[in-house]
Amino acid sequence: MDGMGILSAPWKQLILRALESNSHLKHSSYIQLATIGLNGRPSNRTVVFRGFQENSDKIQINTDTRSRKIEELKYSPFAEICWYFTDSWEQFRINGRVDVIDGLNTDPVKLQIREESWFASSIKSRLQYLGPHPSLPSLGEQPQEFSVDPSTGPVGAFCVLIVDPDQVDYLNLKSNQRLLFTSRLNENGEKCWTSEKINP
Amino acid sequence: MDGMGILSAPWKQLILRALESNSHLKHSSYIQLATIGLNGRPSNRTVVFRGFQENSDKIQINTDTRSRKIEELKYSPFAEICWYFTDSWEQFRINGRVDVIDGLNTDPVKLQIREESWFASSIKSRLQYLGPHPSLPSLGEQPQEFSVDPSTGPVGAFCVLIVDPDQVDYLNLKSNQRLLFTSRLNENGEKCWTSEKINP
Repeated sequence: MDGMGILSAPWKQLILRALESNSHLKHSSYIQLATIGLNGRPSNRTVVFRGFQENSDKIQINTDTRSRKIEELKYSPFAEICWYFTDSWEQFRINGRVDVIDGLNTDPVKLQIREESWFASSIKSRLQYLGPHPSLPSLGEQPQEFSVDPSTGPVGAFCVLIVDPDQVDYLNLKSNQRLLFTSRLNENGEKCWTSEKINP
Repeated sequence: MDGMGILSAPWKQLILRALESNSHLKHSSYIQLATIGLNGRPSNRTVVFRGFQENSDKIQINTDTRSRKIEELKYSPFAEICWYFTDSWEQFRINGRVDVIDGLNTDPVKLQIREESWFASSIKSRLQYLGPHPSLPSLGEQPQEFSVDPSTGPVGAFCVLIVDPDQVDYLNLKSNQRLLFTSRLNENGEKCWTSEKINP
């Protein structure tokens, strides 16, 4: 266990605590991911938080390589997650750079992450990636019956987004407290976090 | 009642229905507003839906002129709202141009909207606009006791955002149906909506 890594991302503790106190709500892992559209306008949609990467503060999201956010992230690799916990009244605004891991990635460590994330998904989630191309006109066909072999690895359309946060703005609407967490790289190239109390 | 206006924005009916079926949840009027940050990165935060402007499909949001989104919108006036209804599993992605109405606006009709929105807010909401400058370092002072005369009009920091949608992407996760509503201006300069069934 990388104690340093956890100490250096103090906001991660706040998220883990919020996830625990809101765990009775299915939607507590639903987050809004904003990106820059190809037309230069903002783009915003709900995605599912799939966890932190092991021993790090990087956030994992599964998505379809054919969805519009993939094109957008190739053009501008930055995103801001807005995560509002409806029971504890806490908001996290997480800004960072996004790495897209698809099946064509040449890094074996990243391909491993993609494979693990595939097998960690439910069969129902996996089936989505066999469906028709998202956001194209629906041809009104009868829904096809797809099936997926539980032991088969990720299909081509499956990819993983890794959000590497460099700023986190935390707001607690019950205590009316707001903290801004900012990262910088130290002389060893490691990410270090500082925090500051700011006005809500 | 402007029947034409309502007919021309068919997604508005879907939102009103979703608001009704989720009305037992305080957070059903909480929406995520994405804008473009001054650094060119996306910016995303939770705001409160304050209603549609009378006889229109324009969405009203109250905010503080001193908040960062105001600077951002002056630089790039576009936003995408992501509105997820946690009980009915419906998502609306509403893209449009944003008009900022502050106290310096010269249009009397807009100033009227701002005043009405001020008086429609709770006293507790109004008090927020008397607090210290949002997102500046907190000076750790004792919270000051502000008070507001219920009959006094909007303070300087109060402003209203009017989002004028030109595209709405609707997703129903229960029926797995997705509809894309797109607007265009007809020969009379009126906004007309068309819809298309697209793949989820």
